[in-house]
Amino acid sequence: MGDTITVLALQLKTEADPARNMAAVTRMLADTRPQSADFIVLPEIFICPYEHEMFPLYAQSEGGEVYRFLQALAAEKKACVIGGSVPERDGDKLYNTSWIFSAKGELIGRHRKAHLFDVDIKGGQYFKESDTFAPGEGITVFDTPCGKMGVCICFDIRFPEMLSQMRQEGIVMAFAPADFNMTTGPAHWETLFKSRALDNQIFMLGCAPARNENASYIAYGHTILTDPWGRIVRQLDEKEGILEEKIDLSLVEEVRAQIPLRRS
Amino acid sequence: MGDTITVLALQLKTEADPARNMAAVTRMLADTRPQSADFIVLPEIFICPYEHEMFPLYAQSEGGEVYRFLQALAAEKKACVIGGSVPERDGDKLYNTSWIFSAKGELIGRHRKAHLFDVDIKGGQYFKESDTFAPGEGITVFDTPCGKMGVCICFDIRFPEMLSQMRQEGIVMAFAPADFNMTTGPAHWETLFKSRALDNQIFMLGCAPARNENASYIAYGHTILTDPWGRIVRQLDEKEGILEEKIDLSLVEEVRAQIPLRRS
Repeated sequence: MGDTITVLALQLKTEADPARNMAAVTRMLADTRPQSADFIVLPEIFICPYEHEMFPLYAQSEGGEVYRFLQALAAEKKACVIGGSVPERDGDKLYNTSWIFSAKGELIGRHRKAHLFDVDIKGGQYFKESDTFAPGEGITVFDTPCGKMGVCICFDIRFPEMLSQMRQEGIVMAFAPADFNMTTGPAHWETLFKSRALDNQIFMLGCAPARNENASYIAYGHTILTDPWGRIVRQLDEKEGILEEKIDLSLVEEVRAQIPLRRS
Repeated sequence: MGDTITVLALQLKTEADPARNMAAVTRMLADTRPQSADFIVLPEIFICPYEHEMFPLYAQSEGGEVYRFLQALAAEKKACVIGGSVPERDGDKLYNTSWIFSAKGELIGRHRKAHLFDVDIKGGQYFKESDTFAPGEGITVFDTPCGKMGVCICFDIRFPEMLSQMRQEGIVMAFAPADFNMTTGPAHWETLFKSRALDNQIFMLGCAPARNENASYIAYGHTILTDPWGRIVRQLDEKEGILEEKIDLSLVEEVRAQIPLRRS
């Protein structure tokens, strides 16, 4: 695929049933015009609404139903699949986990959200993710035919050192399944995706669920792609939809040559 | 002064003569309405235009003429002075250096720009600061009556770990004498000041020279103040002027309580 890749990010409206959400992924992909893509990206917690009660109810295990769905999707579409994230059960713990599959359907990465979303904003959003989830550890970087890439999940993006570490590992792009809300979305979403891309001179793709005004946690949506110069390349609104873009990854080296931030 | 402080940032149009620039500082301050301020901030390389040939020509030593001017200014105005920066001669080396004085005229900090501005942007700005300056080392944090604060200089702001380290040292505000240009200014100035403030939940004040269209290096200007929520509180345009603002520092703790990013 050389330096030019096609990404498809699915901003789907999640419902309280993993089977229906998996069917929605299949349906949305069937509707897309380019029948091939190099990367397919799903949102944070894409198998159910983002609610504490849902997480244990729909928790998945590695090798289970949703895992196998994502694996089969990668192999069938011959695309690297960044499987958004799911509540993952491992022993007596739950994690907010993203599985990443190669275009051959091999598991090439697993990221467990390291920074849990515990916020209490005056007149705004309250959520304490650590009531339900345990934190993961470390960064997640994987090889692709077009270079190293990384995954972080939502609140992780607020920690610049996480992306800096990935950059030191050599990534050219990072994916962030994410689900900002109506307080933090308008306030911080664009700044965070622009600055992480700019600081590390990488592409960043944030994939969010579509907004459901009736949900207890109302998603901001706005699936976004930013480039190594800190520009927004494309951004969806709040509705269900697909962000589809051809990306020329050679811009990474071009920007790094123009503004050399890391000499290593 | 409690939690509320007044800052005055002078966006002055630099000329090829330290004496004229010092006179301009005095004149601009005489013209300001509030005759008292807690912090007075000057731009990067405020004693001459930002040009390689000027740096050795007007280089200052610690304790020299410009140093004593800044010291006297702090004592006279009873204000902490963030003395922008000057070309500093130390032995056979030149540094891009900021001296910081307490309201009593004591030197409480000295920052030597650690990340030199070496860029070569296609169709845009070229500059190789390391042809003239040697890099400084480490971060610069100092105590004030309203908490710890820090200073970084211009290109330093592109390195998130520098601000993260200052945050770990406990700063509530950082000053950045800076001089972006007509390529990097429109592209990156706002994103960098918003994101460093947001990531570290601090106030950030960037103080730039005014634009001189006839200079070889054309300044972007746009002296800026951002807050711990990542908002732009105030921003100048490109012309000579003063950014004057009352800041309620208690917003730092308020934001940190709402979105706890560092638990230490």
